[in-house]
Amino acid sequence: MNEGDLVRALREAFATHDPRVRVGVGDDAAVLAPEDAPLVVTVDAHVEGVHFERAYADLATVGRRATMAAASDLAAMGARPLALVAALGLPRGESPESALALARGQRAAADALGVAVVGGNLTRTPVLEVTTTALGHAERPVTRSGARPGDLVLLAGQVGLAAAGLEALAAGRRADPALAPAVRAFLEPVARIREGLAMAASATAAVDVSDGVGLDLGRLAEASGVALELDAEAVAAHGGAALADAARALGRSAVAQALGGGDDYALVATSPVPIAGFSCVGTVRAGEGVWVVEGSSRRRVAPTGYDAYH
Amino acid sequence: MNEGDLVRALREAFATHDPRVRVGVGDDAAVLAPEDAPLVVTVDAHVEGVHFERAYADLATVGRRATMAAASDLAAMGARPLALVAALGLPRGESPESALALARGQRAAADALGVAVVGGNLTRTPVLEVTTTALGHAERPVTRSGARPGDLVLLAGQVGLAAAGLEALAAGRRADPALAPAVRAFLEPVARIREGLAMAASATAAVDVSDGVGLDLGRLAEASGVALELDAEAVAAHGGAALADAARALGRSAVAQALGGGDDYALVATSPVPIAGFSCVGTVRAGEGVWVVEGSSRRRVAPTGYDAYH
Repeated sequence: MNEGDLVRALREAFATHDPRVRVGVGDDAAVLAPEDAPLVVTVDAHVEGVHFERAYADLATVGRRATMAAASDLAAMGARPLALVAALGLPRGESPESALALARGQRAAADALGVAVVGGNLTRTPVLEVTTTALGHAERPVTRSGARPGDLVLLAGQVGLAAAGLEALAAGRRADPALAPAVRAFLEPVARIREGLAMAASATAAVDVSDGVGLDLGRLAEASGVALELDAEAVAAHGGAALADAARALGRSAVAQALGGGDDYALVATSPVPIAGFSCVGTVRAGEGVWVVEGSSRRRVAPTGYDAYH
Repeated sequence: MNEGDLVRALREAFATHDPRVRVGVGDDAAVLAPEDAPLVVTVDAHVEGVHFERAYADLATVGRRATMAAASDLAAMGARPLALVAALGLPRGESPESALALARGQRAAADALGVAVVGGNLTRTPVLEVTTTALGHAERPVTRSGARPGDLVLLAGQVGLAAAGLEALAAGRRADPALAPAVRAFLEPVARIREGLAMAASATAAVDVSDGVGLDLGRLAEASGVALELDAEAVAAHGGAALADAARALGRSAVAQALGGGDDYALVATSPVPIAGFSCVGTVRAGEGVWVVEGSSRRRVAPTGYDAYH
């Protein structure tokens, strides 16, 4: 199978009847119908050995996860998805079947998001890579910079659970029932588009938690010039049995687990009012940094997590 | 310099006053003002060891070239550029200065294209990589599939010259005056946006020649269900002294050089009428494939060139 054959197979894998798509995969560029709302665009790379290991996930799972990770940034802006563009990097000697397996996962994620993969690029890279550009529209885009003291800190989706899943996979404990929801959270994240749209009316700021609570909430706090104060009990309660069981199996507290890792693609929004689908887990204060209040103690959450540049 | 510091430095490097950019680098996603024209989107990867070698080009040149290569797909659709999104992959231990040098080149290309780099992604990869998403608008996008027998085959920009430049660099002959324009063509390609806009009114099909005349024109011929017949004399005349000198220095004919390699980012359009800025180099015929007529001989141009999947 040469490049032409593989491109043809990928074109079939991504065939669509989406009326917004005027030209899809296979031309010099894709063409999408105009829409009278601000355009939201983001790109996210998934690299073998950095963001995934083949030992942990089949390639359809990798394709789905890479796509959801990119779409999560649309959710964090309060945008509705429009289309996806996928750049694949394949190592020399990689079977074309690998690209088609990735494409099946990308297609599954795109279907779940209600959009099409409209274009892409195929190149040789030393390791397997999926770089996804996600496009959306938002009448009222939510940035990181509008949080105000007094706003609520709202959370949709788990934090820390996917990191427990990764730890379980690395330790060969994927069969442990206490860790099964965590493994699923790591392998099958979901972009929280619905919650993102729900928050857009009232949220003052938002971010998706891909690198960890300390890093991502720290970015929101810095961009807004505020402090975020999390309530440990509320964070643990939000995590429920899945987080509690996983944390216990790994020998730490639910709060420590929640604050300690990324990859969940949870949404955190700040808002003067509650938002359906979100739990209230804290308050915006004057000041800086991310803090956690547990009983009578108040300590700063270190801005650690997944730093891609290390 | 950690990821946060580098992201801040890149945000400064890409700072913009473009009124179309509502949210630029540094948030979860970029936000662009809506526009009442079809949206054109394309992605292109530039990978060390595949698309460039550090021995041949400084990293600012790499960043500029990667950006122009992506924007060339906008030109091929007859689109005007809107914005760029840049995903960088840096090897472990790579200096942050490398990312900033790439960014200087990307910024220079963006300035030349009249747009901003509005977002990106930073990750660890085994070799240096630049993956560029280019966004544009086109009232009348030109695809590959509308060429009709009787149309003219029109060419803007050189074909084969950049390949001569790459050959010169690989052979350590960059100082040879006969090859200097070729080396420049390889290192400093330009996306032919102006010519793309000029063709949009009358072109029936178009493609940019990145992988070589045989491959790229073959794609247009296949998508349109036609044959393309090139006139060897017209191709050589279009190449002028730069192509003739380079071909001679490499021991082959100007026509063989023109048909033998990619990387020029020339535009080929088919149109029932001539288009300003383009040379007429052939005719669309019923049939299939790409052909060259030289005196009384008519031979098929092999669909060879840069096949990324080999």
